[in-house]
Amino acid sequence: MTDVHADAARASGPVLPGMPNLHSHAFQRAMAGLTAYRVNPADSFWSWRELMYRFAARITPDTLGAIARWLYVEMLKAGYTSVCEFHYVHHAPDGKRYANPAELAQRVVDAGSETCIGITMLPVLYQYSGKHGALRYGVAPHSLRALLEGLDAMSPGAPVHIHVAEQTAEVDASLAALGARPVQWLLDHFDVNARWCPVHATHVDAKETDALARSGATAGLCLTTEANLGDGIFPAMDYLDAHGAFGIGSDSHIGVDWRAELRLLEYGQRLLRRQRNVLASSRTSHVVDRLFQGALEDGARDGPRGRCARGRRARRLHRARRRASGSRGTDECDVALVRRFLRTWRNAHAGCGCRRRARRP
Amino acid sequence: MTDVHADAARASGPVLPGMPNLHSHAFQRAMAGLTAYRVNPADSFWSWRELMYRFAARITPDTLGAIARWLYVEMLKAGYTSVCEFHYVHHAPDGKRYANPAELAQRVVDAGSETCIGITMLPVLYQYSGKHGALRYGVAPHSLRALLEGLDAMSPGAPVHIHVAEQTAEVDASLAALGARPVQWLLDHFDVNARWCPVHATHVDAKETDALARSGATAGLCLTTEANLGDGIFPAMDYLDAHGAFGIGSDSHIGVDWRAELRLLEYGQRLLRRQRNVLASSRTSHVVDRLFQGALEDGARDGPRGRCARGRRARRLHRARRRASGSRGTDECDVALVRRFLRTWRNAHAGCGCRRRARRP
Repeated sequence: MTDVHADAARASGPVLPGMPNLHSHAFQRAMAGLTAYRVNPADSFWSWRELMYRFAARITPDTLGAIARWLYVEMLKAGYTSVCEFHYVHHAPDGKRYANPAELAQRVVDAGSETCIGITMLPVLYQYSGKHGALRYGVAPHSLRALLEGLDAMSPGAPVHIHVAEQTAEVDASLAALGARPVQWLLDHFDVNARWCPVHATHVDAKETDALARSGATAGLCLTTEANLGDGIFPAMDYLDAHGAFGIGSDSHIGVDWRAELRLLEYGQRLLRRQRNVLASSRTSHVVDRLFQGALEDGARDGPRGRCARGRRARRLHRARRRASGSRGTDECDVALVRRFLRTWRNAHAGCGCRRRARRP
Repeated sequence: MTDVHADAARASGPVLPGMPNLHSHAFQRAMAGLTAYRVNPADSFWSWRELMYRFAARITPDTLGAIARWLYVEMLKAGYTSVCEFHYVHHAPDGKRYANPAELAQRVVDAGSETCIGITMLPVLYQYSGKHGALRYGVAPHSLRALLEGLDAMSPGAPVHIHVAEQTAEVDASLAALGARPVQWLLDHFDVNARWCPVHATHVDAKETDALARSGATAGLCLTTEANLGDGIFPAMDYLDAHGAFGIGSDSHIGVDWRAELRLLEYGQRLLRRQRNVLASSRTSHVVDRLFQGALEDGARDGPRGRCARGRRARRLHRARRRASGSRGTDECDVALVRRFLRTWRNAHAGCGCRRRARRP
């Protein structure tokens, strides 16, 4: 090891850089797992959204602060060290504005400060109606442009995160209203570049996939939520092959575990394509290397959070656990058994061709 | 609570019945996660199988015993209390038979006894060649029938587990050689009934799905392995709607966690159909109820293991954890924060429509 700063801290064991969490709706943590029952046989994203809005309408500043603190502690424990908070709950349960219109957003920011997680607050530009099942996207093309101009005047180059093409119904609506698919429309009308983070972008055709990758934007992928909501599968192989940048988000917080996000990113492609190691590349043969480095570096573009490179310091370090996901509690195992297993494991693998870099039991 | 036996043991907290694990290749636990790198751009089940056979060829009685003990301790900790061991490694690394031809199988059975997991040993009927990439299924139609007759003579009604239709290439080969899809062929030529457990059966058409469900067989589904190997998605919704029985298996042990199996069973259907709560039913509205009960009851047909019903006792009980998957370590959290969260969580949910039966943070 070379080029170590003289004042660098010394870790007592292996460390991993902190993972950026690119997409979070903090309040949804408190309803995670509570909508896993059938309302009608056609349950979908849209029926879930009704329940979600009903829940959102009951959030108060105190409840939101408590939920966000809880969530951010979970994130830190799971190895996320920064979060982009896509915040769209602004009103009191009675529908009125608070004296401070940013009351709820402030509670989320406070929760970030109290728990010491890095937070990027993204006040959301669209509005939704109080009526169930009747979402109104409040941002028309011209107002989005005006808002971006206003944002630039306040904070040049500030990140722009936008929900787009999560559901096929959105694509249909966009085609009907604007004559173009949502991502294509965005690319045609704005200078989509490294400052942009289209979130989900699940339903993109081949042309959009390629253009989005070349735009330099960071696709915000939220795999566990997208599976939970039945969104569909993003064409990650084509996107990465076109050198598209991506990050991950825990979104609805059905799980708070970046390993689960990356695993599902790869597994979705495997199930779709009936292949293995789909998101490896000719340069990076281990799937986990490509996905971990990608989510870490592209996801940390807004700042140095989590970036691990020579001369840069990860904002926070996460002690790497030896245990892999799935099988639990082995650290409580009988030590003699562990030692014996590791010995026989080494013997059994001698020359078999399996590589030892991935998870080791 | 009524109808409790006078001599029933009293648990100090909530308990869950043990889950049967319907499909295991114990030795594969020691290579789990070690094939997640690209050998060539067309990596698939078939290239994985080459590595797996190379590894299998190096297994000795001692290594297999150690691996199986390790695995079964993991299973018990994860809440599996019985396992069906699909055992096909029979020879020494030099290719010779052991003095006791069942030497390796015996070590697996011993590991079951030592760890106190319930074990069903299934010596596998097919053989594979030592050459990589050249599998030979050693069981022709007439020999399968002869073997079943032999089995019945020894142990009438013993369970019959069979790998079938895991990959589309198998379907193509079956159509070419037998003129029928594999599951259809099986249904046409044998009295497939509750004694049978077709494992994977991923690639079934609508007719096969319906006929398999009506046969009374238990489909052995291994969701994490089927995703890891890029097999494809079993038509679980149609199968359950036709009252098909199923159980789950951790198979290659890429994960040892029945929650992950059941979650992926539902999520695969959601991603495929772009719906939510797909595997709920009109009678059982909570997805988890239907899947947990199904995997528990159908999966335990071979014996009373794990079955939880009045007058029957679960073979072993698993202390239910309050923590849901994904977010880790909350039990170490500050107690005051926990209390505050639970209070605000209850307040936030008052009347929102979410149900509290599912996982509670």
